[in-house]
Amino acid sequence: ADQAAAALWAARDPQLTKPPGALGRLEELSLWLASWQGRHPPRLETPRARVFAGNHGVAALGVSAFPAEVTVQMVKNFEHGGAAINQLCRTFGTELAVVSLDLDRPTADFTKGPAMDEAEFVAAFRAGMDSVPDDTDLLALGEMGIGNTTPAAAIACALYGGDADGWTGRGTGVDNAGLIRKTEVVAAGAALHKGKAPLEILRSLGGRELAAMAGAVLAARLKRVPVLLDGYVCTAAAAPLEAACPGALDHCVVAHVSAEPGHQRLLSALGKEPLLSLGMRLGEASGAALAIGVVKGALACHTGMATFAEAGVAAG
Amino acid sequence: ADQAAAALWAARDPQLTKPPGALGRLEELSLWLASWQGRHPPRLETPRARVFAGNHGVAALGVSAFPAEVTVQMVKNFEHGGAAINQLCRTFGTELAVVSLDLDRPTADFTKGPAMDEAEFVAAFRAGMDSVPDDTDLLALGEMGIGNTTPAAAIACALYGGDADGWTGRGTGVDNAGLIRKTEVVAAGAALHKGKAPLEILRSLGGRELAAMAGAVLAARLKRVPVLLDGYVCTAAAAPLEAACPGALDHCVVAHVSAEPGHQRLLSALGKEPLLSLGMRLGEASGAALAIGVVKGALACHTGMATFAEAGVAAG
Repeated sequence: ADQAAAALWAARDPQLTKPPGALGRLEELSLWLASWQGRHPPRLETPRARVFAGNHGVAALGVSAFPAEVTVQMVKNFEHGGAAINQLCRTFGTELAVVSLDLDRPTADFTKGPAMDEAEFVAAFRAGMDSVPDDTDLLALGEMGIGNTTPAAAIACALYGGDADGWTGRGTGVDNAGLIRKTEVVAAGAALHKGKAPLEILRSLGGRELAAMAGAVLAARLKRVPVLLDGYVCTAAAAPLEAACPGALDHCVVAHVSAEPGHQRLLSALGKEPLLSLGMRLGEASGAALAIGVVKGALACHTGMATFAEAGVAAG
Repeated sequence: ADQAAAALWAARDPQLTKPPGALGRLEELSLWLASWQGRHPPRLETPRARVFAGNHGVAALGVSAFPAEVTVQMVKNFEHGGAAINQLCRTFGTELAVVSLDLDRPTADFTKGPAMDEAEFVAAFRAGMDSVPDDTDLLALGEMGIGNTTPAAAIACALYGGDADGWTGRGTGVDNAGLIRKTEVVAAGAALHKGKAPLEILRSLGGRELAAMAGAVLAARLKRVPVLLDGYVCTAAAAPLEAACPGALDHCVVAHVSAEPGHQRLLSALGKEPLLSLGMRLGEASGAALAIGVVKGALACHTGMATFAEAGVAAG
């Protein structure tokens, strides 16, 4: 984080016509924008959302309420502007790009071996890195991939331990039998791959869209772009970076805590407090896009408010 | 609520390209707009924010960190566009009006007798009713009034009982001695006026801006306008309506739970779940205005998303 930008923020904020701290997390957000963009005032002219799509070998094991064909169908829906993320990006003036990652070639079944070989992992990670234009001033990350709460839970379980039960939820809505199968798959995958280095865990359990999100998080850090992480899958994709290098997610705010119960547990492990809690569990960067509105409000307050001196208001 | 509009909502929502329920409270919000506007699809073309300002006899008792002159100074700040609420309304395309209520004539000290006589109360209540144009499709309500978390706490305490301590917080930031004084004032006011009818409690303990917010809530109900309530003071102003007539606040969503601890307690008493929790404690309708962004996103999803059939997506 840029200390000079943070210092300029800290010089201005106490002068604004409000009691100190009265804007709560809105104050944190404008400080976060300034210090990670490395400029004051920070800007929010080119927010971008990136949705990565991948398919998963484990989808064939009956872990999802939807068939795997839905991934490619939903990508078409994104391209035609019909999904929730399209509406949210339009509402908050955010450019959206969807990056499909070899949808006709699902990852391998991670209960048998690594989901990706090294070349596949690097290609997906790089696709994520390449998706962040230099002029991005805020990046909202998300994903689409039928079955991908299963790798998310398996990564969390492999990184942080504990029973697979505590990390596994119903995703898009599997029934009880499906939830039992899904939990077994998560447990088997975590057992097979735990103890590896964090990025190896991501390669072994994650799908391509998870590797790509991790790549985008890293590229954003290098390009001074603050990041809004979406829900459980997105946070699980980023978590190996933090495990590999503590502080690697300091430029990331978790936009929304998913209704998927493992997400709160993962956030606690990462020490992250989500911005919103609205019972959403859609993915697609939908929670992250919604949070762009809150960040816009936060920035408008910090840059647009009058000071006590300008307004002739007694400072208490 | 309009059952026909709700039925049209319920016919459309399950067809949209998302798992059932996956948009969480965004789904509740679009249903709420439809059923309280009495039309489907609902509209969000003319959202309006109303900030009512009043002064309080109890401010002279040292219950606030700011002097009472700040109320009129902040009204000028609103008029010149320099306050947080101005920036938030601009961000979310919301018209703002500020209604000053006899700022040069504070209410009476409620520890000695009723804060307002009947004529004063009715005038303030009517000013609130008159502030809601017929074409409003969403109303964000809030207030400004140095010292007004004291009447808010006193109203909550008189309506729902319990120790004054549990309802009284630091407001804009009083010190420990101020908090002790404030709690004594709340306890004395609640003790003097408890047991009265709910609207009499509002007249006896509330300020003019609280009476006006109650009036605006009622007018909105009559005009089919869904309402976003702001923080503690706004909720306390509306609570007597619910106490007088259960269901009177069914058209209201509480936008944000204040950092002021009495607010969560009051929300529990009312059975209301706040939409946002961002540690804000500013008033001015700031939490309600911020929530307009979320409501816009919710509506955009409901009206703009493709159906499974339109998008050619398998419905699971």
